[in-house]
Amino acid sequence: MREVSVIGAGMVRFGKYLDTSMKVLGRDAVNNALKSAGIEAKQIEAAAVGNAMAGLITGQECVRGQVVLREMGIGGIPIVNCENACASSATAFHLAWLYVASGMYDVVLALGMEKLYHADKKKSFAAIGSAVDVELMRELVAKMNADQEKLRAERAARGEAPSGGAGESRSMFMDFYAASARAHMQKYGTTKEHFARIAVKNHRNGSLNPYAQYQDVCTLEDVLNSPVVAEPLTRLMCSPIGDGAAATILCASSIANRFTAKPVKVLASILSSGTDHGPDEPDVVTRVANKAYSIAGVGPQDVNVIELHDASAPAELITYEELGICKPGEGGKLVDEGATEINGRVAVNPSGGLLAKGHPVGATGVAQICEVFWQLRGEADKRQVKNAKIGLTENGGGMVRGEAAAMSVHVFGV
Amino acid sequence: MREVSVIGAGMVRFGKYLDTSMKVLGRDAVNNALKSAGIEAKQIEAAAVGNAMAGLITGQECVRGQVVLREMGIGGIPIVNCENACASSATAFHLAWLYVASGMYDVVLALGMEKLYHADKKKSFAAIGSAVDVELMRELVAKMNADQEKLRAERAARGEAPSGGAGESRSMFMDFYAASARAHMQKYGTTKEHFARIAVKNHRNGSLNPYAQYQDVCTLEDVLNSPVVAEPLTRLMCSPIGDGAAATILCASSIANRFTAKPVKVLASILSSGTDHGPDEPDVVTRVANKAYSIAGVGPQDVNVIELHDASAPAELITYEELGICKPGEGGKLVDEGATEINGRVAVNPSGGLLAKGHPVGATGVAQICEVFWQLRGEADKRQVKNAKIGLTENGGGMVRGEAAAMSVHVFGV
Repeated sequence: MREVSVIGAGMVRFGKYLDTSMKVLGRDAVNNALKSAGIEAKQIEAAAVGNAMAGLITGQECVRGQVVLREMGIGGIPIVNCENACASSATAFHLAWLYVASGMYDVVLALGMEKLYHADKKKSFAAIGSAVDVELMRELVAKMNADQEKLRAERAARGEAPSGGAGESRSMFMDFYAASARAHMQKYGTTKEHFARIAVKNHRNGSLNPYAQYQDVCTLEDVLNSPVVAEPLTRLMCSPIGDGAAATILCASSIANRFTAKPVKVLASILSSGTDHGPDEPDVVTRVANKAYSIAGVGPQDVNVIELHDASAPAELITYEELGICKPGEGGKLVDEGATEINGRVAVNPSGGLLAKGHPVGATGVAQICEVFWQLRGEADKRQVKNAKIGLTENGGGMVRGEAAAMSVHVFGV
Repeated sequence: MREVSVIGAGMVRFGKYLDTSMKVLGRDAVNNALKSAGIEAKQIEAAAVGNAMAGLITGQECVRGQVVLREMGIGGIPIVNCENACASSATAFHLAWLYVASGMYDVVLALGMEKLYHADKKKSFAAIGSAVDVELMRELVAKMNADQEKLRAERAARGEAPSGGAGESRSMFMDFYAASARAHMQKYGTTKEHFARIAVKNHRNGSLNPYAQYQDVCTLEDVLNSPVVAEPLTRLMCSPIGDGAAATILCASSIANRFTAKPVKVLASILSSGTDHGPDEPDVVTRVANKAYSIAGVGPQDVNVIELHDASAPAELITYEELGICKPGEGGKLVDEGATEINGRVAVNPSGGLLAKGHPVGATGVAQICEVFWQLRGEADKRQVKNAKIGLTENGGGMVRGEAAAMSVHVFGV
């Protein structure tokens, strides 16, 4: 298989675009990526397009990529629409990579896009709920609500407002994240403050990113005092609902210098799914990351910049451990040391991550890659990580039988 | 790129499975394919899963493949969920082929599945309507209804019942097909009887296929006298709504003999999308077919068996011409000669096609490939095409800006 490089990246600012169609969001992201690569639309030989939930919000299914791209004059090429929940566009990038790596096409577009925001938030939450086994969803929600009952009773005793049932007033994924956070706290002594510090970091990073949905800094107190979503998660520890689009242009490394003096090499592109693994076998992130490290020929100690799937702040901390940038149980220590700040040992989510940059589900995977592309090229302006040579993205999607339905890790290098 | 072979194929009988979940339909198709290939589920290294409309019917989006496959113990591998309307699973097959052809994986599953049938038919029709640009859909439907107004007035004058508005009491695609049928009749003198004869042929073929949704033969009179859907289409000239699943196992040709003495080679796997082409430039089917012939090193005269996208009977006739098995305008003549019967010069839709085998949208592309697999291996029993050595499938999906959103042609050989 051929080595593949990224030669262009483009986004729109993530946000709530109630009156803007996916055609406009997707078009603007693609045009920005084309401009970044210095190529024209007609040079695109194939496209992979990731979207997760717009079908349930807008009614547009089946041919979402064509609806966006044909309007821009991009047609007569393979257009693959793919889904993998929050990992939809990491999947699209993986397929675009595969088209180039196989030798079939030289210049391929990977586009991620999402329309998730709805005036009635319950519709957005319901759409997010389609990223699990819907037949089992009600059963799961009932179980999690029972688990929360005790915590709610405690909150009520403290005179606090109830936080609502799982999957009703919030994404049901936040209940999964809350449960894993509580387990981590119990096992390793990790504290709510550790999680809050990650939120503070990512919001600070987001304030430096013109593409971020939220560009306000916040303090530890702001995070801890924001409304509880599901213990220990407060609202500022949870990624917001939003819309957006992000695009990258991939080409064979052998011809990349025709387009740019600064191609970013794809050192590994791994997509996988969860398993029914036993307690002593590696979780899906660890398994996929280890495969990616092995193929890329690097280890976690070599990585300078990471964009990972911080759908919640605790998820970021736990993913530190799963990616091997610290030992199991030492995620809190890493936070205490400030090791994952932009100027730390390994910068994590310099873009602001899902927490501050936002999480328009189908756009997230490619947006992570856009950020790593800019970081490795030294084009990340105020949030630039110094001397970044190796970057990694981790993007997980959905949940089936208790583990991520889709998991993707990409490693990049210059 | 490596040569790829199909080593196993399996289906469930297409039909209306109101109380059967996609988990069951998908599982049964995959198990049949595994049995056909003589392999176990754990030997699958990656999977591409096509589904088009179940999300709108069942609420299950994002991770439809994982929901089906993880239940069967298939996990820890890439699972790509893809959509391309009626060409969703031809797209899945193309991706599975790409995984193997690239050298990345040796044994890959392509699964197509659909849950489209709903007790309220309008919901099924609405789901089908998601395969076009939904923003433009209302506008288009209004235009087509205006076009039909005259025909309806004529029908009313004859004392016949009205056929309902486009996209309300029928799939709006039938209005597209009716319009192209009328244009063909006007330009070439093709008759309603030509279309009816294709329906008779496909229903006869379907009567020989245990996987077909409809297994009753019908006469020319039956077809012509069945209720009008949109002139000149009668109900028996239109593919029905249904559910189903179909699966194939692909592997590198270099190792195919480990699994079977009768692998079926993939000679070409082409996916593309429509264009805004001018009147003198080739349509999408012709363009994609010519590319497939060129890569496969065969011409239309070499093909013994074809499964093509007869969502309506006129579509089959027009596709004869677009695939080059007769000259433009000579589709009617081909029908008169009986050239596309099972014992004709080139057998078309020996399975019964979409008209009789059924058209559970996301399952259709892989189901076409299952049929060609069986035909080329001499395993098609009563509907066997004699000495079939070269087979072709044509599967189109959706419509954007007046041409198919997705188009796939595969060529197979033994």
